[in-house]
Amino acid sequence: MWFSTSKAGAAAAVVALATGAQMALAETGLLSAQDSDPTVMGWMQGFPPPDERLITQPDANYFSFPKLRWSVCHLREFLPTEEISRGTGAPIALSYPSPARFADLARQIDALTFRPTNATEDMTWDQSLYANYTDGMLIMHKGQVVYERYFGCLREDGKHAIMSMTKSITGLLAEILVAEGVLDDSLTVKDIIPEIGQSAFATATVREVMDMTTGVQYSEDYSDPEADIWVYSRAASPLPKPADYDGPDGYWEYLQQVGPEGAHGEAFHYKTINSDMLGWVISRVTGKAVTELASERLWRPMGAEMDAYQTVDGKGVPFAGGGVTAGLRDLARLGQLMLNEGALNGKRVFPAAVAQTIAGGGDQSKFSGFPSIANGSYTSQWWVFHNDHGAYAARGVHGQTIYVDPTADMVLVRLASHPRAQNGFIDPTSLPAYQAVAEFLMAQN
Amino acid sequence: MWFSTSKAGAAAAVVALATGAQMALAETGLLSAQDSDPTVMGWMQGFPPPDERLITQPDANYFSFPKLRWSVCHLREFLPTEEISRGTGAPIALSYPSPARFADLARQIDALTFRPTNATEDMTWDQSLYANYTDGMLIMHKGQVVYERYFGCLREDGKHAIMSMTKSITGLLAEILVAEGVLDDSLTVKDIIPEIGQSAFATATVREVMDMTTGVQYSEDYSDPEADIWVYSRAASPLPKPADYDGPDGYWEYLQQVGPEGAHGEAFHYKTINSDMLGWVISRVTGKAVTELASERLWRPMGAEMDAYQTVDGKGVPFAGGGVTAGLRDLARLGQLMLNEGALNGKRVFPAAVAQTIAGGGDQSKFSGFPSIANGSYTSQWWVFHNDHGAYAARGVHGQTIYVDPTADMVLVRLASHPRAQNGFIDPTSLPAYQAVAEFLMAQN
Repeated sequence: MWFSTSKAGAAAAVVALATGAQMALAETGLLSAQDSDPTVMGWMQGFPPPDERLITQPDANYFSFPKLRWSVCHLREFLPTEEISRGTGAPIALSYPSPARFADLARQIDALTFRPTNATEDMTWDQSLYANYTDGMLIMHKGQVVYERYFGCLREDGKHAIMSMTKSITGLLAEILVAEGVLDDSLTVKDIIPEIGQSAFATATVREVMDMTTGVQYSEDYSDPEADIWVYSRAASPLPKPADYDGPDGYWEYLQQVGPEGAHGEAFHYKTINSDMLGWVISRVTGKAVTELASERLWRPMGAEMDAYQTVDGKGVPFAGGGVTAGLRDLARLGQLMLNEGALNGKRVFPAAVAQTIAGGGDQSKFSGFPSIANGSYTSQWWVFHNDHGAYAARGVHGQTIYVDPTADMVLVRLASHPRAQNGFIDPTSLPAYQAVAEFLMAQN
Repeated sequence: MWFSTSKAGAAAAVVALATGAQMALAETGLLSAQDSDPTVMGWMQGFPPPDERLITQPDANYFSFPKLRWSVCHLREFLPTEEISRGTGAPIALSYPSPARFADLARQIDALTFRPTNATEDMTWDQSLYANYTDGMLIMHKGQVVYERYFGCLREDGKHAIMSMTKSITGLLAEILVAEGVLDDSLTVKDIIPEIGQSAFATATVREVMDMTTGVQYSEDYSDPEADIWVYSRAASPLPKPADYDGPDGYWEYLQQVGPEGAHGEAFHYKTINSDMLGWVISRVTGKAVTELASERLWRPMGAEMDAYQTVDGKGVPFAGGGVTAGLRDLARLGQLMLNEGALNGKRVFPAAVAQTIAGGGDQSKFSGFPSIANGSYTSQWWVFHNDHGAYAARGVHGQTIYVDPTADMVLVRLASHPRAQNGFIDPTSLPAYQAVAEFLMAQN
């Protein structure tokens, strides 16, 4: 394939943001979180940095560990992006306990112990943050920030790629449109986008796309150069296509030629192309890019303190399946808005039914393939645990999450750059930690 | 040259931001401002837009008129960029008169007449905005916003490429470092950056670089495929280089191989590479990218309401000669900070000497080549008019300006997308208009 050298980096990384692809074998094995800290590694230090510390866009490894740990905070420096504007006014401040109380909570939470699901010994909360290559952790309880900590490349005023958590923003926007009657989730894609043509998506309902129960062909066998993931990567790359390129150009052209695999509506299959299909549906019914809609419906009304941004393909279409980069506190604002069922300081940002529908979850009988979320479901591009706390989450590869625990009145946001791009490696030391901190907080006055 | 098809667009546009290059002949002749309004043209409307309304990054014409009129507000969607952060707090609000007074001033200013220097009949202020393809105009008088208006692609919460006004930000940062004793402008470049090697820049002083009185070879003959502008474009392009490319990679490698042309210190030559040289000097003495420094020293303390951003080369080096995109009101904040000689609400953002040095101007005897600024000078990357109002300005191709008039206590910011990438075409209908509005404001109570 033409796509084997420098162009592979940018293009494949675009997709890796969402799908869990790793672009190359780790160069240094599994360095610890401390040893792979971008500052320790010296990435991009100096003016100019020495060659061996440069991370450049043509470098096919820029989104592989350990460079990944720097690049997750710097995606816009590699790729074209579109802004998700917070607007121009003052942010809505987050609430904090007194500094003394905040520090006391930090000490207590750091010392919490829990048993990882893959271990025979307990681990402390503090240890888990390093085990999971955490870059940012923020916990809200009863609407107050009770824990906040930055590592690696992330700073309070920085931003971090959220990978597949992007899908949950796309799904939330769709759910808002459904609740408001703008989008009928019982329509088929072809009803809304006639030019989807003979694509397997044509006959899927919007709800099936939202819940990823479509029967569409999308292979992620990275060893097969003709696998769909590579065709998708080439289509999605914002770099100029080679002169002899005759494949689809952009996310939406890719979607027009997707083949069938199984029947719609029968089972959950986690395939990123559903999120991009949903992005197109959203833009068609609203006449707005998902970036603009995320700004209008979420970032502005929730009083975000920073703009977010989203990578785009060569035609300016935002990557609805994985392209967003955002700030830790703004993601906490988003999670709190979900926990509050759309209400913020007495105003309504979106109908309560939106968060209720998502929290209620999807069809568990159709869900499988994610052992760490046994008995779970996936609906409106959110993961629902169906546990005794009624928790649900946005999740991204490399360990990103917005974890909403309604029972504990807790929202937890984690940004991370775990070397392994699958939450299956990360859940054993994070999901029980979240449960432990939730129980701790519930026991507080 | 390898650089003739799709790659030309992004790479050459990067340089065009600063140098005045137009990437292709105008496709539609000189459409009027009204007829070339991006909304009227329908650029990028629809999901997806029809092919003939698409503006894509591989399109070599994306930064030529009339597409330019859309692209000036959307550069980050084409190119990798780095943020100039405003921080995360509340902006410092700009002051406005009452709405009634504001509207009354608008009526009066719109009706002002002046005689363009290339005409035999008067023109109104309002007409001049269209004659100049204005996208945004904001005027501050005595610290209050007295006029503010948006056209074309620009909105209140949008941002616009400022092209060579970027140089003035770079120069301002350098002047701050000089005033603070961090940067000695009498040193040569080689004193600060030994690896500049045999480049003609090696023996130039920092002051000569700041004032663009270096004797360096840099040809902008667009018809010559070997002209320096093209070598520079190829080096600067953030896109992957072809496998057989053996030229300089990035702005700084380009600077290492610049040849001499004439002697240093003898005459002003407007060459963008000086600004990039200055950017490197700044980063070397501070250990910070110019984006980070612009954030720390300007965007954060001045209470900007939006982040700005700056395009970068393939190694992440910001384009110090032309890469910034920013909001109209934030540029007004910057201009007001210059007018106030570094003071803001009783606090000092930078030493008063910084603005005084710039306002004082450079050596007029070395200045030539810009008939519309006869008797002017260029110092610290700012244009000084040496007129009876003591006005000075940041200026960018296609008509951008921050125009500071200390006598009238006025700051005027204009963002524009004039089809012709030279202020020589734009000054006749803008500089006398600025003088007219200054005189009007001086006559107000």
